[in-house]
Amino acid sequence: MKLDLNIKKPTTRNAKNTFAEIERGAIKLFYERGYHNTTVANITAEAGVAAGTFYLYFPSKIVLYQHILGVFSYNIRKYIAERVSEKNTRYEKEREGIRSFFEYMIENPEMYNIIWEALYIDYNLFRQYYQTFADRYVVGLEEAKKNDEIRDLDSEVIAYILMGITNFVGLKILFDLGNNNIDIEKIIDVIMEFLEKGLFKENAH
Amino acid sequence: MKLDLNIKKPTTRNAKNTFAEIERGAIKLFYERGYHNTTVANITAEAGVAAGTFYLYFPSKIVLYQHILGVFSYNIRKYIAERVSEKNTRYEKEREGIRSFFEYMIENPEMYNIIWEALYIDYNLFRQYYQTFADRYVVGLEEAKKNDEIRDLDSEVIAYILMGITNFVGLKILFDLGNNNIDIEKIIDVIMEFLEKGLFKENAH
Repeated sequence: MKLDLNIKKPTTRNAKNTFAEIERGAIKLFYERGYHNTTVANITAEAGVAAGTFYLYFPSKIVLYQHILGVFSYNIRKYIAERVSEKNTRYEKEREGIRSFFEYMIENPEMYNIIWEALYIDYNLFRQYYQTFADRYVVGLEEAKKNDEIRDLDSEVIAYILMGITNFVGLKILFDLGNNNIDIEKIIDVIMEFLEKGLFKENAH
Repeated sequence: MKLDLNIKKPTTRNAKNTFAEIERGAIKLFYERGYHNTTVANITAEAGVAAGTFYLYFPSKIVLYQHILGVFSYNIRKYIAERVSEKNTRYEKEREGIRSFFEYMIENPEMYNIIWEALYIDYNLFRQYYQTFADRYVVGLEEAKKNDEIRDLDSEVIAYILMGITNFVGLKILFDLGNNNIDIEKIIDVIMEFLEKGLFKENAH
């Protein structure tokens, strides 16, 4: 996501701490109350910093939100990419990508709320978020096609299909967290079987 | 979705018109500004009805929102079910279900916003919305399993996989609407090929 955000990056150690506290406070409040119900004053109070401090770094609440969305986008992709890079085949990469997405989501349950809220804050930001994610996916899928690992289907549609699968099965996992019956490896097994052979039996139509 | 909503249903023709205008106004404003930025006074003004009228039918804004979510839930399922019932095999039903979901979404682009906003209004409502949808899906999948049409995979996980595919490819279609290159039948072809044979070539791992 290429955003020209008018943010003043902190340089001193104290300033870095303040900046980090503002980020942390904003993530907490955007998650708990939503963007629209959170004021800049709420954020500085939650962060435990002086009210005026906010504007030393961010010109507005929306710029802070864009910054946080960018940080999530970067962190998720980095978290997944590091794990996936250790795998060789597209099959193994896909499995590891799905597993690491679920892991990241369970550790950062505020992720869904903050990302999807873009739909209500700035539609273009929401669109850009998923299109950026899809564009990166397409690169990997095209490579797998060249290696004859996956079938020759439109890579962009496949990217959205795969993002849909992980996001919605991820939702289901979040719904069921705390339930004793949940076995994430078994859920990943179902997804991989589905990716291997599809849903339908041969000659089902 | 079973909700015990404390709504007073209109009985006279005039009352029915007022009720419908409040629904229409609320859908428009929830879509344009979001739930939290819309007041009851905004809704009655948009609907062109007297301010006090609202409370003749709805005890609160949240109850109106729940009512609208229930109406969307019912209408989408009805729209899809009517078209799907004319098809015989699970393969044809699935194709028709996906096509009619996309059609409904294109005709009602406010649908996504209003449904996903439940995540920010009432998490349990959001969860219940998708779980209800999944539960209905499971019934059809179990039948298809009995008929030996689909492979023996966990039906609930498959329901979330299929909902994820239609919702995310649907997003992609909304992103691209107005773009000349968009061909929805071709997109559905890709999904169906994916559902038929999966993503990976044989022995890809």
